[in-house]
Amino acid sequence: VATAPRLSEFGRIARFFAPLAAPGALGLVDDVALIDGPDDEQYVLTTDAIVEGVDYFAADPPGQVAQKLLRVNLSDLAAKGARPFGYLLTTVLPKTCDEAWLAAFTAGLAADQAAYGIGLLGGDSSSTPGPATLSVTAIGRVVQGRAVLRAGAKAGDAIFVSGTIGDAALGLAALKGELAALDQTARNFLIDRYHLPQPRLRLGQALVGLVHAMIDVSDGLVADLGHICSASGLGARIGAHRIPRSAAAGTVLDGAPNQIAAILGGGDDYELLFTLAAEMSHDIDAAMREAGVPVTRIGEMEKGEGVRVLDEGGNAMPLESAGYTHF
Amino acid sequence: VATAPRLSEFGRIARFFAPLAAPGALGLVDDVALIDGPDDEQYVLTTDAIVEGVDYFAADPPGQVAQKLLRVNLSDLAAKGARPFGYLLTTVLPKTCDEAWLAAFTAGLAADQAAYGIGLLGGDSSSTPGPATLSVTAIGRVVQGRAVLRAGAKAGDAIFVSGTIGDAALGLAALKGELAALDQTARNFLIDRYHLPQPRLRLGQALVGLVHAMIDVSDGLVADLGHICSASGLGARIGAHRIPRSAAAGTVLDGAPNQIAAILGGGDDYELLFTLAAEMSHDIDAAMREAGVPVTRIGEMEKGEGVRVLDEGGNAMPLESAGYTHF
Repeated sequence: VATAPRLSEFGRIARFFAPLAAPGALGLVDDVALIDGPDDEQYVLTTDAIVEGVDYFAADPPGQVAQKLLRVNLSDLAAKGARPFGYLLTTVLPKTCDEAWLAAFTAGLAADQAAYGIGLLGGDSSSTPGPATLSVTAIGRVVQGRAVLRAGAKAGDAIFVSGTIGDAALGLAALKGELAALDQTARNFLIDRYHLPQPRLRLGQALVGLVHAMIDVSDGLVADLGHICSASGLGARIGAHRIPRSAAAGTVLDGAPNQIAAILGGGDDYELLFTLAAEMSHDIDAAMREAGVPVTRIGEMEKGEGVRVLDEGGNAMPLESAGYTHF
Repeated sequence: VATAPRLSEFGRIARFFAPLAAPGALGLVDDVALIDGPDDEQYVLTTDAIVEGVDYFAADPPGQVAQKLLRVNLSDLAAKGARPFGYLLTTVLPKTCDEAWLAAFTAGLAADQAAYGIGLLGGDSSSTPGPATLSVTAIGRVVQGRAVLRAGAKAGDAIFVSGTIGDAALGLAALKGELAALDQTARNFLIDRYHLPQPRLRLGQALVGLVHAMIDVSDGLVADLGHICSASGLGARIGAHRIPRSAAAGTVLDGAPNQIAAILGGGDDYELLFTLAAEMSHDIDAAMREAGVPVTRIGEMEKGEGVRVLDEGGNAMPLESAGYTHF
């Protein structure tokens, strides 16, 4: 209807696609499906697409594009506590992606296949008059019933996040010519964080059985915590000052405090955001050490709905943008 | 290398992607992967993408586009003898695909989900400045070790094809304004064959255990038989006059004998092409009746390589185009 307000990406999914969902699709609120596998295990299925000019720049090194594509999918597996198993790849390419491009693209895949112990299961190759469009369907495995979902958070749970948050959004800003005052080392660090996610697979697997709900930070910290909230029927409060930031991000924020929006709303960090019973908080130390990734407590789940972000004085901060969506 | 000859779609797969293949990927020569499932079964995985303006027209009814997308994937499952289980869907859409478009698109999916007894397992939604790009990863199930592959043909096997061949290519020609002399009924029949494939799932399942090799006719009869030949390390000969054609296609050929190219080389029919021991040919009658689809013997597998097409006099016909490829 022409006069109806336009739906968000999530509104479109809820309205048009959720009614089509099979039982294993978890109502399409979890970005993955679970189907029975052999040996009392389940397969975890997830799919993500990237588009030239939207999700990456046409001039980006093809191997790096390949690795980002693969890793954003592996990050979805990490958030379920799954072990990577394999993937299917669809490449829809313009004529500009010639054989040299393909050679570099597949060399990137080969390197990551070795790094993550997975292989290519199949795919499709097609051509387009438009921008390159690349999609992966990744498959992982978990012990039956042990996948960590978005829907399991409980009121009073402590909320943790791995690594540092906001780096990727600031890296993208740097690529766009913003943050001109930044020194080269910090700039390179942030851009690298944007280009090459590090899916937290070992951490995710180590947290199985300990955490109640988990998601990877891809839409943005507040938006992704919002997904846990809506799936779990709860609200959450986090402290803006508690959110872990890198030294480079700290430098940016010192000079431009309004860049806190990048910390709260920017996506693409691919860190893990999870909740667990507050009294179990010390038990994650072992998982953290095993994975070699620090985790930081940033807030608590609470009754209600939505995410409240509090400043150091405990006052609610206005949220201009809850996270990136495509529509 | 700028001076190197450009590789075909299949050449690209063999050179760049086959080295990445996991064990279940069947060397990427079969368009599907097999992975272990529960209950002594295997999952069959396949993925196919379609692009607006390349594989369908922007003005096509969205529900019909959805059904073609789903059915071309189900046809790949049919060619393995698999039962459909579910699918993942990625929609990368321009702004012109509004909510009315999505409503019609998903209504088409809902109708086919009911018809084929499957559900949506997950997916991804994204936006693009280019043409709509839609992909499905379809999942089927077969009893462990019983999937019919392309690689199993034996010298001396009889070659059969289901239904009629060439209709879709002629339907596309009609849509492009060719075949102006055709009456409206024949024209509608051919266009419908192009728009809405009928994946031969029941036939494929009924042929398990009886046939040696199978493929669906999507690239074109000669090209797809060529895939069976190369996967099986054999050649094949077929009689052009033995290829089953519809009444509508017969009318076209009577007026324009050069349209035999559409019969031999045109794709998109999504019929099943399979080989079995010649002495077992009568045993397929039961499968044919069970599925309600006629099958026709068109030739024989032989030692050697490549496909020979013979005219009624037994003379080899020149093949201008062995099948459609994207590159």
